[in-house]
Amino acid sequence: VVEGVHFAKGVSPAAVGWKAMMRPLSDFAAMSGLPQFALITLMASPRTELAWVRKCYAGLTKAASRFDVAIVGGETSSTPGPVAITVAVTGMIEPGRAILRSGGRAGDDLLVTGRLGGSIRGHHLRFTPRIQESRWLTANFVIHAMMDLSDGLGADLPRLAAASGVGFEIDRASLPRNRSVTVDAAIADGEDYELLLAVPPRTTARLLRQWRRKFPRVPLTRIGRLTKRSAKTSALRRGYVHFQ
Amino acid sequence: VVEGVHFAKGVSPAAVGWKAMMRPLSDFAAMSGLPQFALITLMASPRTELAWVRKCYAGLTKAASRFDVAIVGGETSSTPGPVAITVAVTGMIEPGRAILRSGGRAGDDLLVTGRLGGSIRGHHLRFTPRIQESRWLTANFVIHAMMDLSDGLGADLPRLAAASGVGFEIDRASLPRNRSVTVDAAIADGEDYELLLAVPPRTTARLLRQWRRKFPRVPLTRIGRLTKRSAKTSALRRGYVHFQ
Repeated sequence: VVEGVHFAKGVSPAAVGWKAMMRPLSDFAAMSGLPQFALITLMASPRTELAWVRKCYAGLTKAASRFDVAIVGGETSSTPGPVAITVAVTGMIEPGRAILRSGGRAGDDLLVTGRLGGSIRGHHLRFTPRIQESRWLTANFVIHAMMDLSDGLGADLPRLAAASGVGFEIDRASLPRNRSVTVDAAIADGEDYELLLAVPPRTTARLLRQWRRKFPRVPLTRIGRLTKRSAKTSALRRGYVHFQ
Repeated sequence: VVEGVHFAKGVSPAAVGWKAMMRPLSDFAAMSGLPQFALITLMASPRTELAWVRKCYAGLTKAASRFDVAIVGGETSSTPGPVAITVAVTGMIEPGRAILRSGGRAGDDLLVTGRLGGSIRGHHLRFTPRIQESRWLTANFVIHAMMDLSDGLGADLPRLAAASGVGFEIDRASLPRNRSVTVDAAIADGEDYELLLAVPPRTTARLLRQWRRKFPRVPLTRIGRLTKRSAKTSALRRGYVHFQ
């Protein structure tokens, strides 16, 4: 995470640390992996207050302990530029349990966790990666394809579809949205850190039922389905794209 | 590695990539570990040329393949600041074979590989970590303490001595120096990436003999010894210290 890119200058340092740790952990949720060890590199200017660094590390540590991740090392460096923190995480996954973006099939139902859009109002600094949910999903159901939504549904769903060699249809009215978020914003906004998954349609009803019992506070919503490859795919291409 | 800190703006991007990979690999040399997997995070400005990034990755890849390290992932980010690259490396080490800074004993001989000083003239962009040498040392000899010299002998030797709870004596005239480097510079200059080791004195002669046969092109020099803790320790405190 880079100051001025992933967080604004005035943001609480503990929130910056939390976000820096949770971003790579969300990649574990995306594949249903279990994180174990983290390496942290902190680049700060000689003018950065020691108290800022301490609070940032408190945020990193709190986030790591939320998922029993051990911070095992790293590096510090001076920089003439903005504060930047990189976190590398290693972990494990059982054979056959890693879910890729590329396993989607035409006819699969598309489900999304939580609510989309408006992350910039604060969610992007406070989110909890869906690791517990992801582990439960792969322990109990056949999941064809999965990813976390970091650049927005409009950028990420086309990636999943392209990796799977299929198209998709979305029911815009069905999209689970955060308060005061338009459908367009729910599609375009980044940093939701929710899960997008493709599942065989015969299991959808049972999955949704058991999910509601297991995670009563987290919505899981059917938003559409994968289709044979079609020209419609490009209609959704919005969302955040790096370096544009 | 951060532009303006670890490399100057005009430096060859392949050399930047080489250095970014070799710095963490030198930490493996320091402990006698075998590196296996690397994660790379590249932060670049939207104005960074794609060709620059390609050449930098070529340097990273060349350095990784030198030690059979697989680049398995990472992240890219935009930054409003200088180019920065972080490389996190994981690997393995046999039980009991990891050498720490803290194992030195009073009476141990202090040895150093290679030649010291003047790294800023180019060595810091071209060095090869002493992994092969370090692995050979721990496979064949009892090594009490070891570290790589990244901040200069004058900063790093006091750290090894402090961690071991001992003092040290150095024979300044014995220091192996690069061409046109004064004794003071050999002590103060950083980024040697050579190994400093403490060994039981009864094995020194045999170790030096076998080393010359195994690594005829790399000097290994006895530069002094560890002593009971003494007030002399602070006399050598020079070398590069971060954030000063």
